[in-house]
Amino acid sequence: VAQFHCLTFLTDYGLEDAFVAVCHAVASQISPDLRITDITHLVPLGDIRRGAAVLAQAVPYFPPAVHVAVVDPGVGTARLGVAVQAGGSLFVGPDNGLLSAAVAVAGGAVRAVSLTNRALWRETTTATFHGRDIFMPVAARLAVEVVTVDRFGNVQLSLPGADAPRAGLTPGRTVTLTWDGGEVAVPFVTTFGEVAPGEPLCYRDSGDWVAVAVAGGDAARRFGLRPGTRMTLIVT
Amino acid sequence: VAQFHCLTFLTDYGLEDAFVAVCHAVASQISPDLRITDITHLVPLGDIRRGAAVLAQAVPYFPPAVHVAVVDPGVGTARLGVAVQAGGSLFVGPDNGLLSAAVAVAGGAVRAVSLTNRALWRETTTATFHGRDIFMPVAARLAVEVVTVDRFGNVQLSLPGADAPRAGLTPGRTVTLTWDGGEVAVPFVTTFGEVAPGEPLCYRDSGDWVAVAVAGGDAARRFGLRPGTRMTLIVT
Amino acid sequence: VAQFHCLTFLTDYGLEDAFVAVCHAVASQISPDLRITDITHLVPLGDIRRGAAVLAQAVPYFPPAVHVAVVDPGVGTARLGVAVQAGGSLFVGPDNGLLSAAVAVAGGAVRAVSLTNRALWRETTTATFHGRDIFMPVAARLAVEVVTVDRFGNVQLSLPGADAPRAGLTPGRTVTLTWDGGEVAVPFVTTFGEVAPGEPLCYRDSGDWVAVAVAGGDAARRFGLRPGTRMTLIVT
Repeated sequence: VAQFHCLTFLTDYGLEDAFVAVCHAVASQISPDLRITDITHLVPLGDIRRGAAVLAQAVPYFPPAVHVAVVDPGVGTARLGVAVQAGGSLFVGPDNGLLSAAVAVAGGAVRAVSLTNRALWRETTTATFHGRDIFMPVAARLAVEVVTVDRFGNVQLSLPGADAPRAGLTPGRTVTLTWDGGEVAVPFVTTFGEVAPGEPLCYRDSGDWVAVAVAGGDAARRFGLRPGTRMTLIVT
Repeated sequence: VAQFHCLTFLTDYGLEDAFVAVCHAVASQISPDLRITDITHLVPLGDIRRGAAVLAQAVPYFPPAVHVAVVDPGVGTARLGVAVQAGGSLFVGPDNGLLSAAVAVAGGAVRAVSLTNRALWRETTTATFHGRDIFMPVAARLAVEVVTVDRFGNVQLSLPGADAPRAGLTPGRTVTLTWDGGEVAVPFVTTFGEVAPGEPLCYRDSGDWVAVAVAGGDAARRFGLRPGTRMTLIVT
Repeated sequence: VAQFHCLTFLTDYGLEDAFVAVCHAVASQISPDLRITDITHLVPLGDIRRGAAVLAQAVPYFPPAVHVAVVDPGVGTARLGVAVQAGGSLFVGPDNGLLSAAVAVAGGAVRAVSLTNRALWRETTTATFHGRDIFMPVAARLAVEVVTVDRFGNVQLSLPGADAPRAGLTPGRTVTLTWDGGEVAVPFVTTFGEVAPGEPLCYRDSGDWVAVAVAGGDAARRFGLRPGTRMTLIVT
């Protein structure tokens, strides 16, 4: 059985322009293994209530996924974007109520962060196309998978070490990983010695991939992680 | 060349709701390797004749595939769903004439079964959304592939042994496998000893996958099967 | 990270018929690893100017790709199809101005060929459905990837030797390979001895795949090619 990370996409962009395809392209370049499913792009323009209802109706039929929704009459104002974790899934979009019903259906928010970390955005960002410039890039960067587990139980993620700073992973930050059935918040460190024995940590491993380990222990066994486990990663 | 199993999808659901995406999600969770191609979802509501024509027009351009079509003004009545094998492909939908022209184009029906095996349906089933609850789950469960062939020529399918009862595979049933260029009907048994030497059988192998073998023989060679061969599986 | 070759598709076919799905099916059968992204199929019928604008707007967000566009009021006349290389990407469609703006955005044409090589078309070709019969088959056949590099640095492409004549690859022809960051034109030959030491060549290797080599040298190192490098291949 192939592993894939599911990203759903719902907007009011319509189907007559290239907007939807451009968002797909941006996400696929960041995370080529994503399988993107369009929920609908025919939400009536700016109709947050309708978008929220359709999203909430769809979510229960998906596996743990990253759900991106954009119905955003306030784009370009001071209104912020948000990522909300709920029930093993992640919801990304404008903080205008669009995501609320779906988050409730998924079991309620366990964490929410504002999308203020510009390192996760596209490099050039416009005032009016946040689906392309903010929501899709952030969503694609938050979606990671367990790639391999070595014989010590260290868990290598699908995130190159070279991309770590861009994802906000710098020494001293806290990384929260969430997957279907669990979550853990660990410090991002340079060496194992920075945490006490038996404590978990996140670091750039010897092959220069971002990895999760337990000092003197077995992270895969401790957290029940195995190759293909799909996770979302939030840095605070 | 990557192997994939092609599933096509044609409905009158429209593109404004989450109906199509929900059906994709249901099928992908059952069978993650499926490649789903939407033929159209803009068949005029309830227009069986138009749906039949569009489906028949599309089918010749696809490889052997599972074709799911839902234009179903009679949903919720006693009318049954049906799966029809024709020319290496499988057609799944309501038994209201929608599939007929496509089946004829594919070479004519070689077998048809009513979708009465509730083990193949979604666990919760509604009266009005058979695309999600019956047609897609059944179609996804009927689509299997040869995963590996061992050195004895035993052919392991992409169906975990644990899912066998749910697919109707219990001792005493007959399994009909159809692929591009062949078909075979074999008994589902517990041990090789239940069939005569030289006879084919279907069983749960030592790794607990559903497999096809020939007692004292080489099933892969006998039937021309190799890793990646796409099959449909019907239990009677 | 999975490798894939991206093909985009823009037309005025609409979404109510099977036209788009049939084109997907044709391309996927020729090149199963293609990831096809629909840009839009709702260009107003025959509106070349609008199609050109939408395509040009989308292209910058894609990786090097094969872009197929069909808005073609002149289908069935003597007007020819064209394939244009620009900036590591390939643009395929009618030679009526539809591709021009996108080619300019991609950095300008470095090569253009008329699609007169019938070996690359579908076997049966109609006067009115060039998307299915010419543009998609040609595009899918021009898209190849590096599959493996052997220890001598010979570069095996994702094109079976048996398909070489059909792709126009016969002794004496010149093959131009283009990828992100480079291009090379080499003779198609039967044996290494037909070129001078140190010269590059294209041939059917011992496993009967189309491959690129340097006589007495290392083609992978010379051209910076590695497994997964996506190329387009034009024969002149």
